[in-house]
Formats: sequence, C-alpha cells, structure tokens
Amino acid sequence: MSKQKLAECLANVKAGGALVHNITNYVTVNDVANVILASGASPIMSDEPKDVEDITTICGGLNINIGTLNEKTIEAMYLAGAKANELGHKVLLDPVGAGASALRTDTANGLLKKVKFDVVRGNVSEIKTLVAGVGTTKGVDADAADAVTEDNLDEMVAFTKAFAAELDCVVAITGAIDLVADKDTCYVIRNGVPEMGRITGTGCQLSGMMTGFLVANPDAPLEAAAAAVCTMGLAGEIGLSRQQPGDGNSTLRNRIIDAVSNMTPEQLADGAKFEVK
Amino acid sequence: MSKQKLAECLANVKAGGALVHNITNYVTVNDVANVILASGASPIMSDEPKDVEDITTICGGLNINIGTLNEKTIEAMYLAGAKANELGHKVLLDPVGAGASALRTDTANGLLKKVKFDVVRGNVSEIKTLVAGVGTTKGVDADAADAVTEDNLDEMVAFTKAFAAELDCVVAITGAIDLVADKDTCYVIRNGVPEMGRITGTGCQLSGMMTGFLVANPDAPLEAAAAAVCTMGLAGEIGLSRQQPGDGNSTLRNRIIDAVSNMTPEQLADGAKFEVK
Amino acid sequence: MSKQKLAECLANVKAGGALVHNITNYVTVNDVANVILASGASPIMSDEPKDVEDITTICGGLNINIGTLNEKTIEAMYLAGAKANELGHKVLLDPVGAGASALRTDTANGLLKKVKFDVVRGNVSEIKTLVAGVGTTKGVDADAADAVTEDNLDEMVAFTKAFAAELDCVVAITGAIDLVADKDTCYVIRNGVPEMGRITGTGCQLSGMMTGFLVANPDAPLEAAAAAVCTMGLAGEIGLSRQQPGDGNSTLRNRIIDAVSNMTPEQLADGAKFEVK
Repeated sequence: MSKQKLAECLANVKAGGALVHNITNYVTVNDVANVILASGASPIMSDEPKDVEDITTICGGLNINIGTLNEKTIEAMYLAGAKANELGHKVLLDPVGAGASALRTDTANGLLKKVKFDVVRGNVSEIKTLVAGVGTTKGVDADAADAVTEDNLDEMVAFTKAFAAELDCVVAITGAIDLVADKDTCYVIRNGVPEMGRITGTGCQLSGMMTGFLVANPDAPLEAAAAAVCTMGLAGEIGLSRQQPGDGNSTLRNRIIDAVSNMTPEQLADGAKFEVK
Repeated sequence: MSKQKLAECLANVKAGGALVHNITNYVTVNDVANVILASGASPIMSDEPKDVEDITTICGGLNINIGTLNEKTIEAMYLAGAKANELGHKVLLDPVGAGASALRTDTANGLLKKVKFDVVRGNVSEIKTLVAGVGTTKGVDADAADAVTEDNLDEMVAFTKAFAAELDCVVAITGAIDLVADKDTCYVIRNGVPEMGRITGTGCQLSGMMTGFLVANPDAPLEAAAAAVCTMGLAGEIGLSRQQPGDGNSTLRNRIIDAVSNMTPEQLADGAKFEVK
Repeated sequence: MSKQKLAECLANVKAGGALVHNITNYVTVNDVANVILASGASPIMSDEPKDVEDITTICGGLNINIGTLNEKTIEAMYLAGAKANELGHKVLLDPVGAGASALRTDTANGLLKKVKFDVVRGNVSEIKTLVAGVGTTKGVDADAADAVTEDNLDEMVAFTKAFAAELDCVVAITGAIDLVADKDTCYVIRNGVPEMGRITGTGCQLSGMMTGFLVANPDAPLEAAAAAVCTMGLAGEIGLSRQQPGDGNSTLRNRIIDAVSNMTPEQLADGAKFEVK
C-alpha cells in the first residue's frame, strides 16, 4: 500500500512487453493507443467477431470500452471476453455512457453477467447505473449530483467496496476524487486537474493504460489499477504545468500523454496523492 | 446583426450545458469532440441504429456528417433525424463528399427530404450538388472552379439565400469567403487562413461546434451559425499567429482548437470580420 | 538512383493534385489524413462497399490498410482494388497484423491474389508472413527476432528482391533499417529514429503518404516509394530534434507531420541516407 508499490507497478509496465487488446470507441482510439505506448505497453485494436479471438489470444489483457458500440462490436466483446477468460487474461470494462441509452446499459450489464472482469472503471454515474441495473446518465459525462465529494466520501468508499465485493473484482470510479477499491481496501486518490474534463477521452485513455498495468502486475490488480489512476492524474498535473500562454485543451491532451511517456517510477512515488481507506 | 450579438452567441455556448449528438466520420471525430468541448458544449457520439434514438433524446442537437457513411450509419442518420425532429432538437447536415459518389449524393438528398434541418453546412461544391441533385465534387475538397470570390459574390449570396429559402433553414457555405444565410439575410465572413485547408476536418469541426452554438442559442439560428463560423475562422488566425518556426499543419490543428478553448466573447467581437448582405 | 531523383519525387507530390483513396483503420486514420495533406496530396476515406468504387474512380491511388478490418470493409477492399486495377490506378497494401490472426493473414493473402499491387509495405514480420503464407507476428509490431540488421542485411536484401519479383511490384520493409526493392534494385535506407516506434501509426502514415508519392510519380514507383520512406524517416529525425524538455511521444507525432509539411526537396536531398544494393 506504499508509494513504493505504486512505483513498482509503473516500473513493471515501463519494462515493456504488456500487449493490450482494445475493443474501444473510434472517438478516442488514437489517444488510447498513444497513451498505452507512452506507458511502456503495446496496443492492438480489433473489433471484428471473426478476428477478436485470435487477437486476444496473443495479448495479455483485454480492454472493453462501449463508447461507440454497434451490433457487430458487441458480438466481438462477448467473444473476446469469453476467450480472454478462458486464457486467464486480464479483462477490464469501461461502461461508457451506461445509463444514457438502453443499449449501453444492457450491454454493460450483459457483459458483467457473461464475462469475469478484473477491473470495472467508469465515472460515478456509469457505475451507479451498473449497480442499479438502470440509470440516468446524462451523456458520457457524470451527473454533477452524483459526484464523489469530501462530504459523501465515506459513503462512496463503502459503495465502491460493496460493488467490488459483488463483482469480485476491482472497481475504479474516477472524477475529481478517484476511488479504486476491492472489497476490503479503497484507494482515495486526489491527483488530476479539472482541465482534464475538457479533453475527450481521458477516461478511455486511463482504461487502456490501466489494462497494461494489470498485465504487467498480474498479482496486484488493486495496486496496478491505483497506480494507473495516479499516473494519469499526475500526468494531468504535469501537462497543465507545462502549458504556455495560448495553449488550450488540444495541446493539453498532447502534454498529458507526453508526461506519461516521460514519467519515472520515482516521479510517480513523489507525486502520487492518495490515502487508503 | 451586430458583433455584440455574435459575442452573445459564443457566451451562451461557453456557459455550458449544450449536449451535441454526433453521427460523424471516424477520420476527424476526435478533433470534433475536442473542439465541441473547447467551445463549452459537450459531445456524444453514437451511430448504431439501436442506440441513436435514446442518445439523441438526451441531447439538444444532432450533427449528421456523412464523411464515412455506411449502410448501418445511414440507417442511424434517418432514425436519429426523425427522433430529433419529433423532439424539436436542432439538427445540422454536413454533406461531406456529396457529388463524389452516388451513395453520398443520394444520402444527402434523401436526408434533406426526410429530415428537417436547421442548418446545412458544406463546401461550395457539396452545396451546389445538393441544389442540382447531382454533382461532380472532386473528393472531399471543393472544386477551385466553384469557389466563392469577390467577383461572383453577389451571385453566390443570392444562390445561398435561394437554397436557404427552398430548404427553409440556414445554409452555410464555407471556404476562403464564408456565406451564412437564411432566405433574407447573408453573413459574408472573411475570417480564417488558407493554411486551414491543409488540416483534415476543419469543416467537420465547424459543423460539430456549430450544432452546439445552435443548441445554446435556440432563437437565433442564423446568428449562431455565423458566430460559429467567425469563431472557427478567428481561431485559425490566432492559431497561425502562434506557430513557431518548424511548426506545420499538425501543430496548427492543435493551436486552432486551443484558440477556441481560450476564446472570449470580447475577443470574438473584436476579431469577427463580416458584412451583412 | 540519385538524391536528386528522390527530391524530384517529393517535389512532384508537393505540387499537389494527387488524390488518395484510403481504406484504412480507425486507429490512425486522422494522422494518415494529415500526413497526406502535409505531403501535398489529398486524402479521402471510404470503406462502404456501395461507396468505394465511385470514390476510387475519382482518385489516382488506393491505399488498403487492414489494421482494423471487418467483414464489410474486407468486401470494400476487394471491390475498390478491382476497380483501381481496372482504371490503372496505383494500389498499395499495408498488411497490418498479418500473422497475428487468421483473418488478417487470409485477407492479406487473398488481396495479393485478387488485386495487382504497385507496392506492398509492412514490417518485417508481416512481410515474412505473406511470403510464407502463414505467420507468427506478435501483434502489430515486428518480432525482434525478425529484424533487419547489419548482420543479415545481404540476406534480407535478397529476400526483399525475391518477394518483389514474385509479386512483380515494389516491396517495402520498414524498421530500424528500411528496405525498398523491386526485383533488381534495393534501397537500403537509414533515416528515422527509434522513438517513432512509440507512436501509433507511423507505418500507416507512411503507407498513405507513399500512395500519394506513387500517384505523383507514376513512372518511378521504386524511387517514389523510397522517397516516401526517406521523407518519413527524415521527418522523424527533424521532429525529434525539435523536441523540448518534457515533450514525449504525442508531441513527437505532431512534430513529425509538421516536418513533412515543411519539408523541401532540397532538404530531402540533403538528409536522405541510403545506399543502393
């Protein structure tokens, strides 16, 4: 539970060799690929049902993101998930927009029933939708009313642990305050900057990168997930600190990925801001 | 018709809350999402027929871009368009490549028949194709022979107004000189820089962002569309002014989105270059 | 075979007018479009079977990249390839991930049987897969064991020429050392930097840009392909030389495309590093 452990998780990804199969949306897919490369892992994208079983077989982890799902890619998600489970690979679900449409909610719930996930990572509204089985997410951003705050922190920590217990996996709720929990332990993480909310896909990037962390740290999924969250948040802080007058959200996007590519384990140990509850 | 009105249009988008459903091409979709966020609105992408009605229901506007259409996404465009019309949402058509293939021309014409649009925005060759019902667009760029120039300006203003009258909506033809018209009034806009033509998707970005302007300014579609065009063009000027030696089209792309994210209503009022005809 | 010839190839693309139809993956498509524009050519993307014949008809070249293939886009590849052959257009194959899945290997082999290509460009593992008919590529990156090195250079030059002879086209194997050969002549190119390996899609970008070089230099496919490889590699060197402290792979991606957009024929002649074997 130490900063040293998080640093080790990053060092293990930076050492290379973690290959991540992504079935992800076409909006943010390029940034997902580049941040995975920045972290030291390697991405491959495939969403054709006839292709995904072969592709996931050669990878160590599978990142399923439902951000722009369609009938064929949903079929691919189930096939790849089953194959990854069969092979004992790490599998992550990013339920983008669960609650915003019946298809997204149903797909996320269906995947949770059929596939054993190692981590489920989403914003608070998406995760609340999964817990309730239905939801009212407004688009792909979290409802402000759902936000994790200092006031409801203990309640939300308990909520996250309870859902992790139910799913028997790690649950990561990211936002202004990030919660990463298994049934017993919750990392409360305060890295990151609000400006990340004006960049599309920082959540998608985190999910892709986190899958690489899981592959590179097979015996420590909670710490791997927490380390990925701290890495992304710290990269946001570093990226923002490097902004020049006139720079905006598009350049910040680049600077955040740059910061991941340059991040050392020592830097992460110094910059990670978390407590364990 | 004043600069102050354009500034108000931008201020209303910057205030937040406009949610835009995009059915758009996968080439430029990430930049479309980031420029919508830069402007203060929020994007969501969905192009699966079974998903689009739910998604468009929770949004305020729908941006339909046919840049990489396929059979399923065409079906989604019709479904989403009908639902958006039913709910009184703002709907924009970007007929990318109309004239370059029968499928694109037919899809754009078909959508114009079945869906009531608030704005149609394209390059001059695409719009001429829609008016004629057939076309000869060379790819996704306008034919030089079609360009709006100082010499044919009055004729093209009349052409734009006439098509706006026929469609009962706002028509925006963008290029070196931009024309944004309803049946009575045409904004002739001279913002922008030629270097924007060497960046993929500045037109797609404009369409996505313009839909957010329409949502945030529901009673002033002409001024909202014109304000979006001025914002994009002025951002191009600002972006170019910030280029460093060695910078090229990829960095300019970032700087333009950055300029949108930093643009204030006052800056737009100062920088907008237009006349009303 | 002189540097002057390579410079002429670049000058011919920079003169404009080369229109490239891309059926390419959604991961790197935006960068492919921007680097084609940077080089002076123009891109259009289309992968719907009902659209591709019309679109390829108005272009001068077709770039087929199987990076995120699906059943519909595979059908589109065959249709567009046949039409491009019928019209005498330049056609390039980028067999992304051949060897990583049966579908990718089979599609690449099938395309090679049905479509006459002017250039096949891939990493060494992908090309070895095509030669053997089966393969063991680990994802979308080349196996280190397959790499072209100073030690196996003569053998790999012979291998590349032999495959070029078999296919009756130009074969380009890119990596730390690049080989671009027809049956008689092989360019051994030593431009580029290792950091390009941590950016997604530099290979895809090269394939798209190379297709534009082929269109603009119809009578010199070997030199056009070699010039594109030198341009991309030199852009990598220039991009890296412009990195500032804290910059990483995402910014390098932009700087490389920027360097292509600013590259002059003289600069290419000065910077190209190759020998002819």
